[in-house]
Amino acid sequence: MATVYEKSLELHEENHGKIAIRSKVDVNNKEELSLAYSPGVAAPCLAIKENKEDVYKYTAKGNMVAVISDGSAVLGLGNIGPEAGLPVMEGKAILFKKFANVDAFPICLDTQDTEEIIKTVKYLAPSFGGVNLEDISAPRCIEIETRLKEELDIPVFHDDQHGTAIVVVAGLINAFKLTNRTFEKSKFVVNGAGAAGSSIIKLIAKMGGKNIVVNDKDGIINRDDMETYDFSKKELATITNPDNIKGGLKEAIIGADVFIGVSIGNVLTVDMVKEMNKDSIIFAMANPTPEIMPEDALKGGALVVGTGRSDYPNQVNNVLAFPGIFRGALDAKAKKITEEMKIAAAVGIAKLVKEEELSPTYVIPDAFNPEVAKVVAGEVMRIAKEQGVTR
Amino acid sequence: MATVYEKSLELHEENHGKIAIRSKVDVNNKEELSLAYSPGVAAPCLAIKENKEDVYKYTAKGNMVAVISDGSAVLGLGNIGPEAGLPVMEGKAILFKKFANVDAFPICLDTQDTEEIIKTVKYLAPSFGGVNLEDISAPRCIEIETRLKEELDIPVFHDDQHGTAIVVVAGLINAFKLTNRTFEKSKFVVNGAGAAGSSIIKLIAKMGGKNIVVNDKDGIINRDDMETYDFSKKELATITNPDNIKGGLKEAIIGADVFIGVSIGNVLTVDMVKEMNKDSIIFAMANPTPEIMPEDALKGGALVVGTGRSDYPNQVNNVLAFPGIFRGALDAKAKKITEEMKIAAAVGIAKLVKEEELSPTYVIPDAFNPEVAKVVAGEVMRIAKEQGVTR
Repeated sequence: MATVYEKSLELHEENHGKIAIRSKVDVNNKEELSLAYSPGVAAPCLAIKENKEDVYKYTAKGNMVAVISDGSAVLGLGNIGPEAGLPVMEGKAILFKKFANVDAFPICLDTQDTEEIIKTVKYLAPSFGGVNLEDISAPRCIEIETRLKEELDIPVFHDDQHGTAIVVVAGLINAFKLTNRTFEKSKFVVNGAGAAGSSIIKLIAKMGGKNIVVNDKDGIINRDDMETYDFSKKELATITNPDNIKGGLKEAIIGADVFIGVSIGNVLTVDMVKEMNKDSIIFAMANPTPEIMPEDALKGGALVVGTGRSDYPNQVNNVLAFPGIFRGALDAKAKKITEEMKIAAAVGIAKLVKEEELSPTYVIPDAFNPEVAKVVAGEVMRIAKEQGVTR
Repeated sequence: MATVYEKSLELHEENHGKIAIRSKVDVNNKEELSLAYSPGVAAPCLAIKENKEDVYKYTAKGNMVAVISDGSAVLGLGNIGPEAGLPVMEGKAILFKKFANVDAFPICLDTQDTEEIIKTVKYLAPSFGGVNLEDISAPRCIEIETRLKEELDIPVFHDDQHGTAIVVVAGLINAFKLTNRTFEKSKFVVNGAGAAGSSIIKLIAKMGGKNIVVNDKDGIINRDDMETYDFSKKELATITNPDNIKGGLKEAIIGADVFIGVSIGNVLTVDMVKEMNKDSIIFAMANPTPEIMPEDALKGGALVVGTGRSDYPNQVNNVLAFPGIFRGALDAKAKKITEEMKIAAAVGIAKLVKEEELSPTYVIPDAFNPEVAKVVAGEVMRIAKEQGVTR
C-alpha cells in the first residue's frame, strides 16, 4: 500500500503543484478587454494615484497575503533552501484559501540574509494586504518579524511563532477549566526557546502566567547566564524564571503544572512527568515524534495531552489560527496583528469546545470545524476596531 | 451613458480587482490535508532538495510567471508608482491566463532603483518559471532586462520592448507581401528610441533591415553625437543610419518605405507622409492618439496603416505575442527567450493572416483569434529545442 509520502508525491506531480491563478473577470471580447485592460484600466490606476488607499478598492491587494519563506527551517526538515520549501508554502496558500477564502501566494526567497529579506518584503508590500512569514530559522525570524511590523503598515505575522502559540493557549484555557487551574497560579515549563517557544511564553505571560521556566539546549534560561544569550533569549530571561532556578529539564519539571514542548522527540520521560503536579497538562509538539508519546505521558500521571499529530487527541494545528487571523485582519483593514488579537483568537478557539463536550481528550476543536475561522476572524476584527489599528 | 473609464472603475470595485488564487487540490478532510500539507508534503520537499530541477515536477513554478513592474512608466500615465500600477499588472496576469493558460502573478515593487530591482527579482526567482517585466521606464528597463537575462536561468522578457516589436514585425512581413518589399531594401524610420523602439530596431535588423533611421526627441541618432548618448542610444547609433544623416523627423522621413511610431501623438504630418515612397507603410502606435491618424496617413499616400487602437484596422496588440511566447518557453522549459524565438513568433503571427484574406486593412490577425497563442507557442518551442536552450 502506498504511504502518505508516496501518495503526496503523486498528488503533487499530477497537479503540477497546488496553486493556480484565477481570473475574476471575463475577457472574451474587445469590450471586456477594454474594461479589464487598456484603455479602461487607466481609470483605477489614476484613482489610486490620486488616493493610495483606493488600491484596496480596485485591486486584489485587500485579500492577498504573501506566504514568505527563505527555506531555512522548513517543517522538521531544516535548511532545505527556497525551491525545496516551495511545496510547503503552496500548501499554506491553499489552506488560507480553503479555511478562510484568503488569496495567498507562495514566495520562497533566494536569500537567507536578514537585512535582504526585510528589504525584499518591503519592496513586495504594495501588492499584498498582509505578510505571513513561514519556516524562517530562529532567531532571524524574530528579528525579521519585529522589523517588518515596525516598518510596514500591513499585518505581518510569523505563523511558526504565533499560530502555535494561539492554539496552545486555547488548549490551556480549556485544560485549566478541567483542572481548576489559573494562568496566574500555574507553573509552566516550556522546552525549546525557538520561534514558537518564545511566542508561547509571551502569550502565556500576557494571559497572566507568572511562573514560566524555559529550558533550551543549553539548560534553563536564567539571569546569571545573560551575557551568553542572543537578543531573543535575553528577552526571555527577563520575563521568565522568577526563582532563577538552574539546571536542565529534569530540574525545571519539578512541581510544574504544564509542560509545553517545542523541541525534539523523546526528551520528556515518564519519570519526569511523575515529578509534575497531579493531573498535569502536556503539549508535546515536536514532529513527527513528540517530546513524549501520549500514552507515556498518561502513564506518568498527566490528565490532558496534546501533540502536533492528527492521529492523537488534541492536535495543536496552526490551521485553527492563521486563516481566521488573516481573514479578520484583512476584513478590518488592520494595520497590524496585536497581542490582544492573538489572545482574543485563543479565547474564541477555546470556546468552540462546548462545555458539555469538554474532556481531557477534547480541549482543542477539530481543524475542520467550519466555525473556527469565522470565530477567530470575528474576534480579530472586534479587537482591531477596539484598538483603532485599522486603516 | 457610462464611459469605458466609468465602467472599468465599476468592474474593478465590484470584483475587488481581477485575480484570485485557486487551489488545484482538495483539502476536505484529514487524509487530504496530510497529502497536500504535513506530513506528506515532506516528500516533494525532500525530492526537490535532492534534485533542484524537480521543483518543476512537484510545484506550480513551471507554469508561473511573475509580472513585475516598479510603476515608473505605466501605460501612457507615466510614473504613477507601484500601487497605482497594480491594476495594469493584474490585467496582464489575467490576459496570460485567458490567452495561454499561463498562471501569472502581479508584483509592483516599492523601489525604482535599478540594482535593487535586479536583486529583488533574483531573490524571487525560485518561485517562478519566468519573469515578464512591465512598464518600467527606459533606459533602466533595458539594463534590468539585460542583466536579469544574464544572471537568471529562467526566461526574462520585457514585454513593452519585445511584445510590440514582434507584432510590428509580423505586420511588416505581411505589408511587404502586399507591396513587394523586402527588409533588405526598405528604408525604415523609427520615431522614438525608448524601450519598444530599441527592440523594434534590433528585430528589424535581425530580419535583414539595413537602412533604419531612428529619430528621438533630440533628433536623428547619428554617429557624430555619440558622446551625448546613454548606453542604449549608443548601441542604436552603431547599428542604424548607414548614411549618417542628421536633422529631425522631417529629414528622416524623406524616401522612407516604413514609418514606425513609438513616441507621442500627432508628430507625423500628411506632408511628411507625402515625402515617403509610394504605398508607404505606417505603424503609428502612440496611445491613445497615434503619431498620425489613419485617415490622414492614407491621405498622404500610405497603403497600410496600423495603430495601437482597437477601433482602427491592424491593431498592434501585445496580446498577440506575450501569452504564446511564455506558453512556448514554459512548455519547452526554455532557459531564455532568444531573438530567433521572437522572429519565429513574428513569422508565425504573420502566417495566421491567410493569403486570400491579406489586404491593407488586414495585415495583423485579430487579438481574439484562438490560434495565435498556439502558433506562437509552437514556434517558440521549436526554436528552443533547435537552439538547445532548454533545461
